[in-house]
Amino acid sequence: MADPAWNPYDRNCPTRELLDRIGDRWTVLVIGTLRGGPRRFSEIARAVDGISQKMLTQTLRALERDGMVTRTMYPEIPPRVEYALTDLGISLCDPLTSLEQWATTHMAAVFDARRRAEGA
Amino acid sequence: MADPAWNPYDRNCPTRELLDRIGDRWTVLVIGTLRGGPRRFSEIARAVDGISQKMLTQTLRALERDGMVTRTMYPEIPPRVEYALTDLGISLCDPLTSLEQWATTHMAAVFDARRRAEGA
Repeated sequence: MADPAWNPYDRNCPTRELLDRIGDRWTVLVIGTLRGGPRRFSEIARAVDGISQKMLTQTLRALERDGMVTRTMYPEIPPRVEYALTDLGISLCDPLTSLEQWATTHMAAVFDARRRAEGA
Repeated sequence: MADPAWNPYDRNCPTRELLDRIGDRWTVLVIGTLRGGPRRFSEIARAVDGISQKMLTQTLRALERDGMVTRTMYPEIPPRVEYALTDLGISLCDPLTSLEQWATTHMAAVFDARRRAEGA
């Protein structure tokens, strides 16, 4: 249930900033990668082609702080660190998958519209 | 059906830029406003509390160029201009509504997580 206390149409509502966060391309792609199960930093970096170390670090820290991702260190030699979705992170998978699917399904239509706009 | 030609995990895929666009807070809120039917510029500006004239103009132009919104001028005195969703724009409503609902439903849980992160 959407909580009526929060309303992103109100300029002071913190859900606006949360919308930016969850709709960000890196959040979509990192959470999309973790959908498949826990991953190491280097595995996520490979899956999200071209993401910088710095951006991946920032994205994971923000997701950890916001309770969507856990970071677990296994005391092996060398130590292994894995990132995984929490229940909150899992609840975000469906909306983000829809967004990702919309983008891949409609990219061609958007390009057609841009061509028409340029020709007009 | 998602087109396998497009893959946002690939750094060169234009769907990455499209993801940024559609996940942007202003896109979410402007399309959310137009879900209710055609609106004038001033009506959208009122619904999306605090959006600047410049940002609303930019957002509407981008949505028009990308084929999600139409701009229709009615030759009245004074002329009336209305913005409306196209079929492509309507197809984006469900994913964006899910995103908006996720944000309002889980804002409290995100705040709890942040408090725990600060206390840790």
